[in-house]
Amino acid sequence: MHKACRDKGAPACVGLDPVLERLPAAVRQGEPDPVKAIRRFCLGVLEAVADHVPCVKVQSACFERYRAAGFDAFFEMIERARALGMLVIADAKRGDIDASSAHYAAGLLAGADGPDALTVNAYLGADGLEPFLRVASREGKGLFALVRTSNPGGDALQSLRLADGRSVSEAVADLIAEAGAAQADYLGDSGYSLLGAVVGATKPQDAVALRARMPQQIFLVPGWGAQGGGARDVQACFKPDGTGAIVTASRSVIYAFEAAGDEPWTRAVERAARDLKQQLAFVAG
Amino acid sequence: MHKACRDKGAPACVGLDPVLERLPAAVRQGEPDPVKAIRRFCLGVLEAVADHVPCVKVQSACFERYRAAGFDAFFEMIERARALGMLVIADAKRGDIDASSAHYAAGLLAGADGPDALTVNAYLGADGLEPFLRVASREGKGLFALVRTSNPGGDALQSLRLADGRSVSEAVADLIAEAGAAQADYLGDSGYSLLGAVVGATKPQDAVALRARMPQQIFLVPGWGAQGGGARDVQACFKPDGTGAIVTASRSVIYAFEAAGDEPWTRAVERAARDLKQQLAFVAG
Repeated sequence: MHKACRDKGAPACVGLDPVLERLPAAVRQGEPDPVKAIRRFCLGVLEAVADHVPCVKVQSACFERYRAAGFDAFFEMIERARALGMLVIADAKRGDIDASSAHYAAGLLAGADGPDALTVNAYLGADGLEPFLRVASREGKGLFALVRTSNPGGDALQSLRLADGRSVSEAVADLIAEAGAAQADYLGDSGYSLLGAVVGATKPQDAVALRARMPQQIFLVPGWGAQGGGARDVQACFKPDGTGAIVTASRSVIYAFEAAGDEPWTRAVERAARDLKQQLAFVAG
Repeated sequence: MHKACRDKGAPACVGLDPVLERLPAAVRQGEPDPVKAIRRFCLGVLEAVADHVPCVKVQSACFERYRAAGFDAFFEMIERARALGMLVIADAKRGDIDASSAHYAAGLLAGADGPDALTVNAYLGADGLEPFLRVASREGKGLFALVRTSNPGGDALQSLRLADGRSVSEAVADLIAEAGAAQADYLGDSGYSLLGAVVGATKPQDAVALRARMPQQIFLVPGWGAQGGGARDVQACFKPDGTGAIVTASRSVIYAFEAAGDEPWTRAVERAARDLKQQLAFVAG
């Protein structure tokens, strides 16, 4: 992950969250099949951003909406992104226990045609994460567990104060820090664990505390751009050496053509990806 | 849900968690395609249990393991279960925000060929649940949010004590109770909300407190049988009138043939479903 960010010049990730209603007219025209239209759009986005960002995050919900056909397109995008030289995070937020977690890990993370990393939900505890960790470890892949989400409603549970003084999200952070170091081979040469954390860009105060509690976690930071997070907000997610986080922007990049003029839509997307990279190259200093 | 339980005589649900390695030899023989073998097994289980239980819970992880082909089989099982007169809960434990939750709701809950209910994860808060609630309300369907899971590791987060005296799972319960009554049409004639709660059978002490906090929630109670929960453990999930919960058993029913003799495997599964029903008819008295 760090090498990819260094090579591309910034810890930036573009989120692929395709919504049929927002596709460019040029893509929708003459294409009645929604999955084919989404597929065409995503391929265009991937081509446009590949030279500028090291990583894409593919939102599985947008594809699962179309069931099996969407699922096929989801894995096609993973493959295509990798072929274009990017790392791929499958944003599926799965969380279960025992055999069910193992099944999710087998279907959504494992294999040469699976993504490089998967987002998971830790509400069920460390034993629910273990099957994911085993697959990630065996295959040299990564995980990002939800710790502090970027949506307003996340506060209702994640900000609650525990009797011991921690917030709920800090308790989850401690659980993730521990689970991510439970086996020696969960830690890479860089000192980071294969188990990372999702920490929203919209909660900069929390990010400071969470960074201290999870020194070995790479942060996946959503909420940049459309959700309101900016450069100062994400700074706390990084370590002083500029490593330790990757910032993801979705709508502000992939729908950049909506605010652009008559140019081809992919050019607006490419410019937005380049801007994202330049903004983040500065942040990660 | 209550009518279905009354008609079939017990608040019992069979969990369809098919694992290739545990399929009966008779099913696996001559079937090299894992999805076809699982499909054949599940169809046999559905036929065997349909006369005895009002409801089945289909574990999506077992199907997603096989990606698009598995996803197709998942929806085929939903359709088949309904054709056999059972209610169907899709156990997919999805949780996201905004458009992503809406996509999951559209793909995994909505539609005549979708399930009757879906399990969801509330870690992201009430705004993440809202798109699911809207679809459920519009289509007369239900949701079950994870509150207290049956696995040992669930304690690490769910049992933590808050400064205000509640446990984390009790705080989630309050969030669910509130979200489930946020709109008048989230409440049915029975007084129950379309938003129910997953409360494990292995935590009877917690169930008492959670039942009191969620008077309008139907509890989906996993952990019966293979996970150790028994009749006394689930009693607290029901209201005094015997309504308010549905108990789900997976492995102890669908793999009942493993401990049986030479009889056809479906007969052992059918007997286990009948036993489950009889045990629960007594519990719900």
